[in-house]
Amino acid sequence: MQIIHTIRELREWRKTAGRVAFVPTMGNLHEGHLALVREARQRADHVVVSIFVNRLQFGQGEDFDQYPRTLQQDADKLKGEGVAVVFAPDEKELYPRVEQRYNVEPPHLQNELCGAFRPGHFRGVATVVSKLFNIVQPEVACFGKKDYQQLAIIKGFVADLNVNVEIVPVDTGRASDGLALSSRNQYLSEAERAEAPRLYRELMAMAQAVKGGNLAYAELENTARAHLEAAGWAVDYIEIRHADSLEVAHAGDKNVVILAAARLGKTRLIDNIEVRQD
Amino acid sequence: MQIIHTIRELREWRKTAGRVAFVPTMGNLHEGHLALVREARQRADHVVVSIFVNRLQFGQGEDFDQYPRTLQQDADKLKGEGVAVVFAPDEKELYPRVEQRYNVEPPHLQNELCGAFRPGHFRGVATVVSKLFNIVQPEVACFGKKDYQQLAIIKGFVADLNVNVEIVPVDTGRASDGLALSSRNQYLSEAERAEAPRLYRELMAMAQAVKGGNLAYAELENTARAHLEAAGWAVDYIEIRHADSLEVAHAGDKNVVILAAARLGKTRLIDNIEVRQD
Repeated sequence: MQIIHTIRELREWRKTAGRVAFVPTMGNLHEGHLALVREARQRADHVVVSIFVNRLQFGQGEDFDQYPRTLQQDADKLKGEGVAVVFAPDEKELYPRVEQRYNVEPPHLQNELCGAFRPGHFRGVATVVSKLFNIVQPEVACFGKKDYQQLAIIKGFVADLNVNVEIVPVDTGRASDGLALSSRNQYLSEAERAEAPRLYRELMAMAQAVKGGNLAYAELENTARAHLEAAGWAVDYIEIRHADSLEVAHAGDKNVVILAAARLGKTRLIDNIEVRQD
Repeated sequence: MQIIHTIRELREWRKTAGRVAFVPTMGNLHEGHLALVREARQRADHVVVSIFVNRLQFGQGEDFDQYPRTLQQDADKLKGEGVAVVFAPDEKELYPRVEQRYNVEPPHLQNELCGAFRPGHFRGVATVVSKLFNIVQPEVACFGKKDYQQLAIIKGFVADLNVNVEIVPVDTGRASDGLALSSRNQYLSEAERAEAPRLYRELMAMAQAVKGGNLAYAELENTARAHLEAAGWAVDYIEIRHADSLEVAHAGDKNVVILAAARLGKTRLIDNIEVRQD
């Protein structure tokens, strides 16, 4: 496994590599990332994993400076997974002018759900993923469904800008108590960690209700929100949306996704469950 | 020479083509385009010319519907030029949802110079060129310096988004009286056509003055504007800018470009001259 830090070396390596599957990450890898890597390995001759904490997708007051940088541990985890290349550029390599002048601009969806609480976040994601695709030039790229809105936005720009990369969604990895795996789980205190699976349980209860034919989406959303708030959470949103377009779901939509973001103390957790009935 | 209408067939052809040079056009080809094709042929095994009148870059009230569509004549002109593929998609092929949701968004430069008179134009150009690059996946692409601001914006997004395409600028083709070759010249009446080279003459006079050390840029701009207006032109802008960044030039900048857009009757003409002294 090679660790490559520059675009030039990556492009040089790419010239003779065959079919490439790509897993972009911000490092601080956990089992959820490794599931993406294993999926990628099934789909190509070579797997490239990028590790880059992307300033562009962090807002004012977010945890960019504190975000864990753990390249050596990450590389150790990837060694046993059949990864060909870890691409770990520094900031100057991807943003040599500091300012990113040209951006991939998503539509209004970027300002909804998580976007309403993280202005500019999805523009930053779309732009850096676009840059990384242009550098790595993979045939396939794997993304977790845990970041469901991010996945929708990546699928969106790939389709709209005719990017020649197949996007493979991978199911959310979970702890045995249901908590979605996330780099941010490590910020949780012991008590918060014990409380955290409630988010998943509430989403599951909503999913069961929707599967059972309950069409009172607003009521379901309000009930789950009340449960979380009573347990000390600050809820950013809980919403039932169309599973593919992420538009507000209408009663009778066959495929929906229930998405939530909520804060426990200082830690913001997100999760979602798809309900597909077509 | 093949004429290909679909993305799928183009991608299929691309798999076995070697090094590709690309010339994106809106068709209605003239000698200026053929100069781009000849430059492209020097730089690759295969030349792809796209012909697509891109609705996205036309504003309200512009000539999208009237823009000449002359595929058969264009193909005839390209046959003798060693072109491998003419890519001529229809609108549904490039914009299957009609609406383009994700765009390549240029910085403020998109609202200056021509952009001040054509809102959305350069976003539309950057977006369609980005799409075409993703479809054709060329090693090299040739663009005319006649559309100098367009060239700057394409160079800009290629650099900022790490697009792996070498951009080759090609000098402006001119009629013997100096008029820059343009599809829109055919809209000129006989009298307008006789008057049209004045634009180039005024730019040349300014370039001579700058080369001679005249640093009174605003005065030079005002004089040229007055000459054109006295001859019946409506001037959108005449400006001296930094040749590479297109920022407003400062006295003493070594490399500048003098750009103008002005209307003769209903026809809007643009032209520019670089003055490089480094």
